[in-house]
Amino acid sequence: MNGVRAILFDVFGTVVDWRGSLIRDFSAWGADRGLTVEWAGLVDAWRGAYVPSMNRVRTGARGWANLDTLQRESLDEIGGQFGLPKALSEADRDYLVHGWHRLDPWPDAVPGLVRLKADFIIAALSNGNVALLVNMAKRAGLAWDMVFATELFRLYKPDPKTYLGAAALLGLPPDAVMMAAAHNADLRAARALGLRTAFIARPYEYGPRQVGDLSAEEGWDIVADDIDDLASKLAKKAVLF
Amino acid sequence: MNGVRAILFDVFGTVVDWRGSLIRDFSAWGADRGLTVEWAGLVDAWRGAYVPSMNRVRTGARGWANLDTLQRESLDEIGGQFGLPKALSEADRDYLVHGWHRLDPWPDAVPGLVRLKADFIIAALSNGNVALLVNMAKRAGLAWDMVFATELFRLYKPDPKTYLGAAALLGLPPDAVMMAAAHNADLRAARALGLRTAFIARPYEYGPRQVGDLSAEEGWDIVADDIDDLASKLAKKAVLF
Repeated sequence: MNGVRAILFDVFGTVVDWRGSLIRDFSAWGADRGLTVEWAGLVDAWRGAYVPSMNRVRTGARGWANLDTLQRESLDEIGGQFGLPKALSEADRDYLVHGWHRLDPWPDAVPGLVRLKADFIIAALSNGNVALLVNMAKRAGLAWDMVFATELFRLYKPDPKTYLGAAALLGLPPDAVMMAAAHNADLRAARALGLRTAFIARPYEYGPRQVGDLSAEEGWDIVADDIDDLASKLAKKAVLF
Repeated sequence: MNGVRAILFDVFGTVVDWRGSLIRDFSAWGADRGLTVEWAGLVDAWRGAYVPSMNRVRTGARGWANLDTLQRESLDEIGGQFGLPKALSEADRDYLVHGWHRLDPWPDAVPGLVRLKADFIIAALSNGNVALLVNMAKRAGLAWDMVFATELFRLYKPDPKTYLGAAALLGLPPDAVMMAAAHNADLRAARALGLRTAFIARPYEYGPRQVGDLSAEEGWDIVADDIDDLASKLAKKAVLF
C-alpha cells in the first residue's frame, strides 16, 4: 500500500494462538504431575480476567503493573475454581504464568512475517510485557524489527499514546503506519488516530464457540484471511497504487 | 558464561563502523553534487559534538531531545567549518542526519550476532533513537531480539537507569545480563551495577590515529577481538563453568 512503511501487529490472537497453545502446554504439564485440572476452562477464565485486570490500571484504580504481574494475580484468583491446587509452588506458578511467553504462532504467521519484513518495518504492538514478547518471539521465530510492548509507555492499548507513541518512535506519521489485528476494536482505535488498518480473521481464537470478531465490522484498508494473505494483498496494492 | 541470558550491545563503534561508513557515504553523495567538503574532518567534528550535546540533556540544561535532533543541531553548528554550504536544503540536511541510520556493520558483526542469537537474547543498548537503530538493523541485517534505544527511558547512557531498565524489562537480574562494548567507560558503568562485561576491541573506530579504548583497561569478564570471537569465548566459558 502506497506510503505504508511500518506494520504494527497485535500479538495475542492475531499472531499467536494463545488458547490452543496454553491448553496443550498445561495439559501435558499437568498430566506429568497427575493433576486433574479443567485446563480449557481455566485458560478461558484466565483470558476473561485480562481486560478487567488491565482496566484497573487504565482507570488509575491501581498503579502500573505489567501483564506478567496481572496474569499472576488473576491466576491466583481463578485457579481454584478449575481444580488447580491452592498450595502451588512458586516454581509451578512461574511455569504457568510464563506459559504466556511460550505461545505458538498460527501456521501462517512466521512465513507471512518473513515476506512482510522484506518490504516493511514489522513490529509487535502488544499489551504483553517486553520479557514476554521477546521470549515468545525468540521461541517462535517471529522476526520483529521492533517490539513495542505497551509496557514501554506504562500504558495499555487502546490508549492513543500507545499507537501514536510507536509511530513517533519510528519517526513516521500515523498514516505511514498500519495496525494489523484480529480485533475490530483495536483497529477502530488505530483508525481514529490516522493509522491504516488491516483485519486478520482469526475465527477460532477463542475456540469453536467464538462469538465476537468473526469478521471485519468496518471497511478496513485490508481484510485478510491470515498474515500470509496480508503480504499478498499488500504486494498487490503496491502495484495498484 | 554461566547464568548469562542476555547480551546488550553498544552499537556505535562496537557493532557498526560509523566513521568509515559516513565518510564513504557522504563522499559519494557530495561528489555527485560537486560539493567540495572535507568529509573526514566533518565526520570527526560531528562525532566530537555528540557527548557535549548529550551532556546538555543529561544535566538538565535542556529538555529531552533524541539523538537525531542533537545530530541535526550539531551539523548546523559545525558544517560550515568543513565547507558544507550554509544554504543546504531540508532534504539534504535529512540525508546527512540519516547517514547515522545507514551505518555499515564491522565484518564480524552480522555472523557473530547470528551465532550469539542461538544461545542468548541479543539486544542493542544504544544512545541512538529507536528509528535510527531500527532502520540501521534492517539495512545491515542485525538480528536483534530487542532494540533498547535509551530514548525509551528518555535518558542517555551512562545513566544507571538505562542499564538496569533494560535488564528489568527483560525480567532478568543484572548479573544475568552482559554489556558488550568497545568502550571501557560503558563497561565500567555496567559493572558498577552488577552486569557482566565484554570488551570488544575496535582500535580503528576513530580512524588510524585513535588514542583511547585501544585495549581493555580492566579485567572485564570477556575480552574479545571482535563479536565472532565473543561468541567463541562465551561458548568455551559455558563448557568450563
